[in-house]
Amino acid sequence: MTRVLGIDPGSHVTGWALVAEEGSARRCERSGEIRLGEGELAQRLTKLHSELRALLSELSPDCVAVESAFHARSAKSALVLGHARGVVMLAVGQAGLPALEYAPREVKMAVAGNGSATKDQVQFMVRRLLALRAAPGADAADAMALGLCHLHRSRLHLPKSRSRRAAAEAALWRAKARR
Amino acid sequence: MTRVLGIDPGSHVTGWALVAEEGSARRCERSGEIRLGEGELAQRLTKLHSELRALLSELSPDCVAVESAFHARSAKSALVLGHARGVVMLAVGQAGLPALEYAPREVKMAVAGNGSATKDQVQFMVRRLLALRAAPGADAADAMALGLCHLHRSRLHLPKSRSRRAAAEAALWRAKARR
Repeated sequence: MTRVLGIDPGSHVTGWALVAEEGSARRCERSGEIRLGEGELAQRLTKLHSELRALLSELSPDCVAVESAFHARSAKSALVLGHARGVVMLAVGQAGLPALEYAPREVKMAVAGNGSATKDQVQFMVRRLLALRAAPGADAADAMALGLCHLHRSRLHLPKSRSRRAAAEAALWRAKARR
Repeated sequence: MTRVLGIDPGSHVTGWALVAEEGSARRCERSGEIRLGEGELAQRLTKLHSELRALLSELSPDCVAVESAFHARSAKSALVLGHARGVVMLAVGQAGLPALEYAPREVKMAVAGNGSATKDQVQFMVRRLLALRAAPGADAADAMALGLCHLHRSRLHLPKSRSRRAAAEAALWRAKARR
């Protein structure tokens, strides 16, 4: 069984979903959203970090899938989103887990067969692929799509390209972090 | 005596400087640069976080001054820089310290009397204002300028504008973090 945690970072809401695959069956074990409220930036990031650390330790997934880029309208909004994404990558690194990054087009292609699929199409397909009773929230749906995208890629034996040396260094570092 | 830690976050190098004021004298107690190398993002952010936590605990400044925005060329570079800045704000928040943000124009105005001052002018003025024997590195100089900008503002009794409620909430939260 492979269990992947999809995380969709946002400056106000971060969606997450634990997607598991056993044989040919895929299901969503748990999902949710971390809401950061309206406090100061340092305060919101501290909350995001501590909730993520607790989540990673409780769920202990095999790996984490994160979107590689945002559809930022401007450099300013990219900076704001980058704060949350940096804290997500930090929490994953501290847990000693591999963080796999997937481009938005790649994720949409994997779940809806179309790299330009709309948010509604992604939500519809995620619900269908995971046989969910109710439609998931938009942020949780994106996190589920990330998890499905990773499982899809792993099944096709299409590992993310990475130099051998970088892979070896990362493995060594994760082993240290786990100790 | 007021001791402020200026931090200039970067995706590869983060400059820092501890600037102290006693009466009318200002000096740079210590400064340095945290270099993150070329590893994976999660790995680099973990290094940045642990070095910042150690630095904050060792230096125990009264507050931290950080630049409020980057001169990002594109949304992509803003995202990359946002990662490092998010980790900096997180470490400051976890230390229970107030993070004061200053715009690049404000910093240049405070040290060089000109909001459009060049990097060379800032380095020259920082060296003069802090009576440094040697010219500081570019990243450390930016961090010193941030520290000086904060001291300048505090002396002019120009606190950063913030609602009373937000200030009260932040004070409460910092008291909690310190416990």
